[in-house]
Amino acid sequence: MLQKLETHLEKNFPFLKGKKLLITVSGGIDSVVLAHVFHQLKYQIGIAHCNFQLRGIESDLDERFVEKIAKEFNCQFHSIQFLTKEYCKKNKVNIQIGARELRYDWFQKLYTEYEYDYILTAHHLNDVMETFFINLSRGTGLDGLASIPPINQNIIRPFLIVSRNDIETYANNLNIKWREDQSNAETKYIRNKIRHHITPELYKLHPNFEENFLNTVLKIHDSKIFIKQKIAALQKEIFTTKENDFIIDKNIIKNLSDFEIYELFKPFDFTATQEIKKLIATQTGKQIYSSTHTLLNNRDSLILSINTQDLNEDVYMIEHMQDIHHLPISLNFSFANKEISKDCIALNLEQTSFPLMIRKWKDGDYFHPTGMRGKKKISKYFKDEKFSLRDKENTWLLCNHQQQIIWIIGHRADRILTCKPEKENLVYISV
Amino acid sequence: MLQKLETHLEKNFPFLKGKKLLITVSGGIDSVVLAHVFHQLKYQIGIAHCNFQLRGIESDLDERFVEKIAKEFNCQFHSIQFLTKEYCKKNKVNIQIGARELRYDWFQKLYTEYEYDYILTAHHLNDVMETFFINLSRGTGLDGLASIPPINQNIIRPFLIVSRNDIETYANNLNIKWREDQSNAETKYIRNKIRHHITPELYKLHPNFEENFLNTVLKIHDSKIFIKQKIAALQKEIFTTKENDFIIDKNIIKNLSDFEIYELFKPFDFTATQEIKKLIATQTGKQIYSSTHTLLNNRDSLILSINTQDLNEDVYMIEHMQDIHHLPISLNFSFANKEISKDCIALNLEQTSFPLMIRKWKDGDYFHPTGMRGKKKISKYFKDEKFSLRDKENTWLLCNHQQQIIWIIGHRADRILTCKPEKENLVYISV
Repeated sequence: MLQKLETHLEKNFPFLKGKKLLITVSGGIDSVVLAHVFHQLKYQIGIAHCNFQLRGIESDLDERFVEKIAKEFNCQFHSIQFLTKEYCKKNKVNIQIGARELRYDWFQKLYTEYEYDYILTAHHLNDVMETFFINLSRGTGLDGLASIPPINQNIIRPFLIVSRNDIETYANNLNIKWREDQSNAETKYIRNKIRHHITPELYKLHPNFEENFLNTVLKIHDSKIFIKQKIAALQKEIFTTKENDFIIDKNIIKNLSDFEIYELFKPFDFTATQEIKKLIATQTGKQIYSSTHTLLNNRDSLILSINTQDLNEDVYMIEHMQDIHHLPISLNFSFANKEISKDCIALNLEQTSFPLMIRKWKDGDYFHPTGMRGKKKISKYFKDEKFSLRDKENTWLLCNHQQQIIWIIGHRADRILTCKPEKENLVYISV
Repeated sequence: MLQKLETHLEKNFPFLKGKKLLITVSGGIDSVVLAHVFHQLKYQIGIAHCNFQLRGIESDLDERFVEKIAKEFNCQFHSIQFLTKEYCKKNKVNIQIGARELRYDWFQKLYTEYEYDYILTAHHLNDVMETFFINLSRGTGLDGLASIPPINQNIIRPFLIVSRNDIETYANNLNIKWREDQSNAETKYIRNKIRHHITPELYKLHPNFEENFLNTVLKIHDSKIFIKQKIAALQKEIFTTKENDFIIDKNIIKNLSDFEIYELFKPFDFTATQEIKKLIATQTGKQIYSSTHTLLNNRDSLILSINTQDLNEDVYMIEHMQDIHHLPISLNFSFANKEISKDCIALNLEQTSFPLMIRKWKDGDYFHPTGMRGKKKISKYFKDEKFSLRDKENTWLLCNHQQQIIWIIGHRADRILTCKPEKENLVYISV
């Protein structure tokens, strides 16, 4: 007889049927049950296990334990031994962040190399609750309350709709063995507090607390996406490009709500809405500064410009797709379908605002390299790729108006700001 | 020396300065401190106390206690004795709802009669937290998490930014006396649970929990309003009126997100987005029903129509402002400024979608009478106003397309769906 968990998954993630799934298994109860359920349901799965070598023999026993499961399921097994401590020391990151970088970077490599359709992780509803309350206490706003997304590009978290309790019941009923999970050390203390002192009390408030909570989080997630889209459309409508700046009609801003003003200027690091409103009310010529931009009151308009004085090198603005003749390197814009490579990226036209710019790197620059999770300093990228001083000096960065790096031209793209080729409404940029 | 609380209030509610404020005081610590602070800050205040006569001599002692405070502050004192139990029995509501109706109804009367600028209540940050968690557990979505608004028409809650702890410190430091509050009996159990078991644990999660929490709630509140406005604009854009129905292009709906579809059709009581998407995919002629509306798949369109068969009496649709000649009573639409009365209401043009309709009352009809808080059954309104059977039969209701009652024509308007005359972009409807 199929368990509650299995019915849940078949009903809520029908799109996984017939796909090749990479299941990430630490050896802890959550991921072991995840693998078990998908094996039971006869999905085509592979199992990936990271040995971070942080707990001596225990780490090796975890690895052997997961390998045994893969054998039992007769499925492909991938494992890797990381020199985690060395990696973290070298990259000056804490163990949790380092382990996460290593882990997701490797998962994405397996995804590409072995042609998996999705990567599955075992985060569950109680993880969401804990993240929700950590973020509520930190004041991270709607974005934080949206918590862990159930689907994030090729990463799927099918257990977000089930509770720790359901997973434990499943494991006990089917007599499934697992090893105690030692991960999440950094937030373990605060998560334990929430798990033992807050969550149990919340369950007592309402018989359907679990379901009601999950619905609320999903609704927050949808609300967040809706707001982001609307604000992007609003920006496109009222920010007009002139030379290197954005020009914004003051009278339009005056009619916006504080919320809209906040959301519009947040990407340019202006977060004090009252300051912007004050600026509008003062005389022409006044300006305010953020870490990246200047906002100038100029008669009927606000002029938003980049703080180029902060940049070490020349900056070349690209005001529209044809505006490439003055650039120090040859860039080509095209709507024709091209193959994405280190020499060609794709941008979504809807989500891209001109002007773009190209410039040299500076200290503190970072990007989100394609094929890995998290962000990386440009300096670190150069080092890992063994760039000479001359290579570094000769490398151009394509950036958007918020100075975010879209592409280390000819080398590596930012995975958040660029698109995969299967999407619609793309423009291709190549060298 | 001014206390933290006083600085807080002067900084965050500057618009109260120089205004005439009605402070509602039960005699409990929160409201006594509220009155004290505004007295200290030399605002022009009046104090209102309701004696619900629910706790015998204790209720009378509360009243005398508050009266003494008003005398001490040398400010106007308003008090009233309600026959609360009789009222609730007669109106078939529980004590909490009955007491709230009586209370806010009376506050609004004082507000008008004594020309106050604002009504102040003493809800504080911990009340917000408790409401937040009650609503989170009930799954009321973003609306519920926005919790108690700091400003709601003429009602201001200046203590929403301060905690119970701050209020207690203030009272203790200044040796302020109060009487134990006995209200909120209905939610007392669940509120106590949150107060004693959840809130203290949350405070331990982050040193700035209080401030971070408040910022999140205010952001949720702003997000909610932003979403509502955008959805209203979207509806106006894509719902076209034809005779008594709304016509919606199927291809437009296909390009909307699930979230947008949900929010668009929720007011018509269609909450299963998947059902609507399924309807679009099926053949022409299929329809689905909500409690109030029918949605029909008709070639390239969806047709949204009211379930008129549920109504006992004739329904007359008003498709546009000139479409009044077929009505059984004489209605007049005008843009000229008129005085609002029982015979004339004002609607905001932006927020009003045609068709409107007039019809007779039916069982279960309710509205939100101007000048009081909460809603009231039409049958109850008729009873209270001593309508004869013939009066009831002769009375027409003006309703919107969602069948919400805008106006008991010639008698009383709904305070949510109609506007005050000082607003812009109004249309006046009179008999």
